[in-house]
Formats: sequence, structure tokens, C-alpha cells
Amino acid sequence: MPTISKKSTAMPASAIRKFVPLADAAKAAGTKVYHLNVGAPDIKSPKCALDAVVKKCGELDHISYTNSAGLMELRQGLVEKYYRKIGINIEVPEILIQVAGSEAFAVAMQLTCDEGDEIIVFEPFYTNYNTFAYLYGITLKAVHTDIHQDFALPPVEEMEKLVTPRTKAVLISNPSNPSGTLYSRKDLESIGELCRKHDLFLISDEVYREYCFTDEPHFSAINLPGLEQNVILVDSVSKRYNLCGARIGCVISHNKEVMAAAMKYAQSRLCPPVLGQYASIGALDTPQEYFDETVKEYIKRRDCAVDMLNAMPGVYAPRPKGAFYTIAELPVDNAESFVKWMLSEFRLDGATTMVTPVSSFYKTPGEGLNQVRIAYVLEVPELEKAMKILAAGLLAYPGRTL
Amino acid sequence: MPTISKKSTAMPASAIRKFVPLADAAKAAGTKVYHLNVGAPDIKSPKCALDAVVKKCGELDHISYTNSAGLMELRQGLVEKYYRKIGINIEVPEILIQVAGSEAFAVAMQLTCDEGDEIIVFEPFYTNYNTFAYLYGITLKAVHTDIHQDFALPPVEEMEKLVTPRTKAVLISNPSNPSGTLYSRKDLESIGELCRKHDLFLISDEVYREYCFTDEPHFSAINLPGLEQNVILVDSVSKRYNLCGARIGCVISHNKEVMAAAMKYAQSRLCPPVLGQYASIGALDTPQEYFDETVKEYIKRRDCAVDMLNAMPGVYAPRPKGAFYTIAELPVDNAESFVKWMLSEFRLDGATTMVTPVSSFYKTPGEGLNQVRIAYVLEVPELEKAMKILAAGLLAYPGRTL
Repeated sequence: MPTISKKSTAMPASAIRKFVPLADAAKAAGTKVYHLNVGAPDIKSPKCALDAVVKKCGELDHISYTNSAGLMELRQGLVEKYYRKIGINIEVPEILIQVAGSEAFAVAMQLTCDEGDEIIVFEPFYTNYNTFAYLYGITLKAVHTDIHQDFALPPVEEMEKLVTPRTKAVLISNPSNPSGTLYSRKDLESIGELCRKHDLFLISDEVYREYCFTDEPHFSAINLPGLEQNVILVDSVSKRYNLCGARIGCVISHNKEVMAAAMKYAQSRLCPPVLGQYASIGALDTPQEYFDETVKEYIKRRDCAVDMLNAMPGVYAPRPKGAFYTIAELPVDNAESFVKWMLSEFRLDGATTMVTPVSSFYKTPGEGLNQVRIAYVLEVPELEKAMKILAAGLLAYPGRTL
Repeated sequence: MPTISKKSTAMPASAIRKFVPLADAAKAAGTKVYHLNVGAPDIKSPKCALDAVVKKCGELDHISYTNSAGLMELRQGLVEKYYRKIGINIEVPEILIQVAGSEAFAVAMQLTCDEGDEIIVFEPFYTNYNTFAYLYGITLKAVHTDIHQDFALPPVEEMEKLVTPRTKAVLISNPSNPSGTLYSRKDLESIGELCRKHDLFLISDEVYREYCFTDEPHFSAINLPGLEQNVILVDSVSKRYNLCGARIGCVISHNKEVMAAAMKYAQSRLCPPVLGQYASIGALDTPQEYFDETVKEYIKRRDCAVDMLNAMPGVYAPRPKGAFYTIAELPVDNAESFVKWMLSEFRLDGATTMVTPVSSFYKTPGEGLNQVRIAYVLEVPELEKAMKILAAGLLAYPGRTL
């Protein structure tokens, strides 16, 4: 009997999705599960996006390949109708459509690093960065940020300590998944300084750009002066417009060498999903009010979640300024055991709540063991119910440390 | 200025898509280009597939993620409405939806091989096998097959000579892209014998299964007795139903370890494109007549292409039994130069023909230098025009060897 590769055997399972079987079992047994574990919002997609797909499928008689870089109409539309409007000035050859943000950052990592090379990240960081780093033999070096300091960046000298001759890039998610931290222009400038000094790429994952809860606008890394050749922007169309399943993202850079190489990766998988590209073209006509409404809604949810969390004895959760996540520190021995216990043992009126343990979002061993990520992707009344269950669960949990 | 990874710099450009800029330039200058270079058929998608998307987009208010393994309705539908009907008996846990055949074989290669491991292929083979082998550090060892023997497999002893301690899998495309060769049950049995004897995986890429031009039905590797733990089937829903842009395929195996590891890769990219999954669910209701008509149409086109090719002085093209490609040997010094010359220099009544040089489909240096792949994806009248241009081009080409 043949054996699978060592790489595949040792590959870590998704920290976010690995408890799905427990949730499925709970549901099969009749339990209602409140999902605060995945960033899968319940917000409606813009109607213009779905209408565009309906129209195209009515007109076309077959769905053929597109150019590997994506449909020109979509690339041009993004440049003119979206990026220009928000002050990101790029030309069509500087944008390439990807199979969602996932492909975009996976390609960016490969574009910058050979096996054995290193990328500086800020922990806690999106756990799939880890997965792809593992697959490509890249080492992630984590700058630690602390929940009790609102995950603020340390001074540039602290970050610089991680730079070695193998360091090729800095990878930041802004606003951050999983912490919701929004990095300021000043933060970006200090990271930019590091990249300029050491000739590093700056991979900026901005898929949550439209979900910022402050008055100052989001500052994109691509607008850092003097870093035109360093910055690779990772973006998601499907995340922005609540079309997560459409799987459309993009990679953007002023660096010609980066874009030429990105095209080779793009050609190897032929083309991005075409129906999702049609939805994305339609989504470009989304009115500003859509985002305004969405942000207003998320602020309500964030405040609901954060207020209720901090009212629970022994729980601490910062009030994030972006994305739709917050990290909470819980009075538990081990967040992973707690999550499992909630799914398999704890019920309140026939329901339970699912959250994500975040220890695997940290690189430093032992960090985040009592923390969970909460995606506030439910409407307030549902979110309240989910939080009440979490509160009750914390009181009943045998591994409670308070 | 930062520099991109060595891996990205050295990565080969797509052999199929690298001449696209020349074709674009020709078109921009007003030249009509007959595309026989990509396997992008002009056959209509089944109406039920497009209707299903229209219906879903009318009903839904947002496009969310699906399970990483794909929608249960699609997996179950494929098992019951498609595979069972064609004599492939699998259960739902044995099928996982992928981002087209491209992701399916890329994952299968990683599932079976670590860096430095080897896969046996049959040259000429699909050039993107090379690209992914390159990215994963896998060595392809090619069993040579000859155009003048209709690309028939050599005896098993010949193949066995390529087996080393690092060999982990055999990868076959049946029917073959690029040669259109259809492998018989006997062929598969001899490959299966090799895999059993040396504990190798057999990755069987059957994306062209419904395009067979013989009376005997296609024999799937997954039905090889005693090889249940060895075979990994790579399939494409979007290719089968002329929905190439939908980007939906699957990986199938009875081997539980393979499927569990495939799920980890699937989770790393969250989920397959959802709109394409809807199209695929709709496509499951495609009547058998659709395939009968399509096959009839391809036989006409194949005969047109092959007859016209063999009527050109110095040209030889076998009559393939499957897929929608044939390889032709041309009286030219170098097929790549010829293809470039056709695109940039040769015009007949303001038109030219684009085909794909196949030397990069061979692993053995020097093989296939005067061969091209012709995808007969145009209707007969158009195909005839394209062939006339090719014939005239061959007579005028300065590097003609006849």
C-alpha cells in the first residue's frame, strides 16, 4: 500500500475549520450552533452583483476561460471605479485577478521567498499564513503584540531584531484578522522604513479595508512614498462585497518583476472563476451607502460583543477598530479544550456557541492559550443569545481558572 | 530594491499561453486569429447549468462560503447522478470538490510526493504537470511514446526501468492531453501492475472522459481491481460540461488517508467557487444526448483536421481516439519559431492560425521540436479555413525543411 507524502501527513489541519465535525455532530443531534468561529458574514451581497450574474448567464451560451489575469472589464473596473475612488492609483497591468485573497497571499509568499527564506509577521496573525509558509518551506518570524496593549506594534528597533539575511518580506493584515487591529499611517511608515532599509517586500493584506470603524480613512501600504517597488497588495473582492463564495481577489504591485512572475503562477491554474468575476464586475456599481450601512451594523455588533464579553467575570476583550473580529481572553485552562467542551457538552436551551481558539494564530509557544477569536457576524439579537450562552458556558466549564 | 524569489524567476512560462501577447498584437493590428492553441471549446454549455445559476442568484441574498470539500448537494449529485451511471462506484466521503482539474492534480502531486520524489509520466504530457512539479520540487520521469506508433505505451518492463526508490506515483491523462490517445483497459492494467508491484500511487487525470470516439466505453483507472488504495482520480466538472470558466473539478479516492490529507489542502483555500458549484449542480441534469451530440461533432472536426493535416506535404498527424487534440509533425526546422512566425508575419486574407508547439510537452531533450498540438475546438467551416492558412503558412515558412 502506497503512503502519502511526509509533507501531507505533517501538514497542520485548519485551526479555524478543524472543529467543524464537532459542530456538525451537535447539529445532527438537534443542537442549535451559533457560529462566531468563521468570518462568514450574514450581510447581504449587493443586489447589483447577483443581478450581473443573472444577466450574464441569460445572455451567454457557454462559460469559457478568461485570460489568466482575469477579465479586462474587471481589472479596468477595479482600477477606475474602486481603487481610484479610494486614492489608490494603479494601472491595469499592475492588477491581476486571483482566486480570492487566499490565492493572492499564497502567490505573494512564493513571489518573495524561496525555501528557507523568512517572512516577518505580527502575532496573532491569520492562521493560513502558517499553512502556506509550511507548504512553501518559509519560516515565519513573529513580532509579538499584546492583547493588553490593544495589539499595538512595538518600536521599529524591536521588529528589526528579527531581520536576518534570509528575511525577504514583512506580511501584515490591516485591519487585522484575527485581532481587528487597525494600523495607522504612522505604523505603516515604521514598517515601511524597515522594508526600505533591508530591501524587504511588504505584503499588505487589506481584505478588510472597507470595515474600519474610525473617522480617519484606512491608509493603504501601497501609498507609502518611496516603497513602490516593495509593496505587494493583497485584496479580496469577494470579502469586500459579502460574496465570500465567489472566490475573487487580486494582487497589486507597481513592481513589474513581481507582476510578470505573478502572471506565470496565474497561467499555471489557467483562469480565475468566471461567474465570480461577473459578480465582481456587477459589484463595482455598489453605492457608498452599502458600505456605510455595513460599517454602522458592524459597529453595533462589535459594541454588543465587546460590552458583553467584558461584562463576563475574568474576560477581557479590546474594542477593535476594524475587520469583524475581536480576540477575547477567557478564564479557562485551555481555550481549545473549552471550545471542544462547548461543542460536545454544553447546551443552554438546546443551543451552544462556537468560537475559534487562537493559540495557532501565535508563533511564540504558549501564547494565546486562553484566547479565542470571535467573529461578530450575526445580527445583534442572535449575537446576544450567542454571548449569553458563552457566558453561561464559562461559568459551568470544569477547566475554569477563576 | 527587493528581488523576487529564485523559484519565481526561474519558473517556466506557460508553454500554451506564452504566445498570447503575439496573438493579441496581431488582433490589435486587425488580423483575424484562428485559435487552435487552447482547449477552450466553442460548444454550448448545457442550458440546465446556466439556468441553475440564474435560479440560485435570484433566490439567494448572499454568496457565502461552502464547506471546503464543496457543497454536499454537488458531491452527492456527482456520486449518484454521474459516477454511478458510468460504473464508477464511490461514496460521498471519497469525493472532494476542487478548483477545477488544475487544483485537483496539483493537490494529487503534493499528496503523493515530497521534494525530491519522482512521478512517472508518459511523454508528450500536459505541460502544466511540469509547472507544478517544478513548484513542488518533484522530478518527472518520462516514458517515451512515439507519434509514429500512435503514442502507444511500451511494455511494462520498459516503464519499470524508470522506477527508483524515490518514485511515488504514475500520472496519466486518459484520454491524453496533448495527444488525444485513449488508453485501453489493458494499458491501464499494465500500469496498475507496476503500481501494485512498487507501491506507487496512480494519479489518473480523466478530465476528457466524455470525449471518446470508439465504441468501447472509457475504462477508468479507479475500476482497476486490487488498486483501491493506489488510485487517485482527477476529474473536471467544468471541462466535461463546457463550463471551463466555472473552475470546478474533483479529486476522488478510496484511500482514506489520501482524502483526509486532501481535506487539509482544501481547507487552506477555504472553499471552491460557489457560483461554479451551482452551475455544476445544474449540469448534473444534462441529458445523455448532449454528450452524444458533442462526440459526434468532435469526430467530424477531428476527421476534418486530421485529413487536412495529412494532405499537407510533409505533415503527419495520427487520428486520436479521445479528447479534442491531435499532435502533428510539421516539415519545419523548429515548431516554436514557426508558431511565432505565423503570428507575427504570416497572413492569408488578413487571417492567421495559432497552434501550440509541443517540445515542452516532452521531457526528453530534442523530442517534439517539429511537432505542434492542434485543439480542434472550432466548427468545421472555421476549422477548414484555419487549416488552409496553416497549409499556406507551411509552404511560405522560411524554415521549411521539405
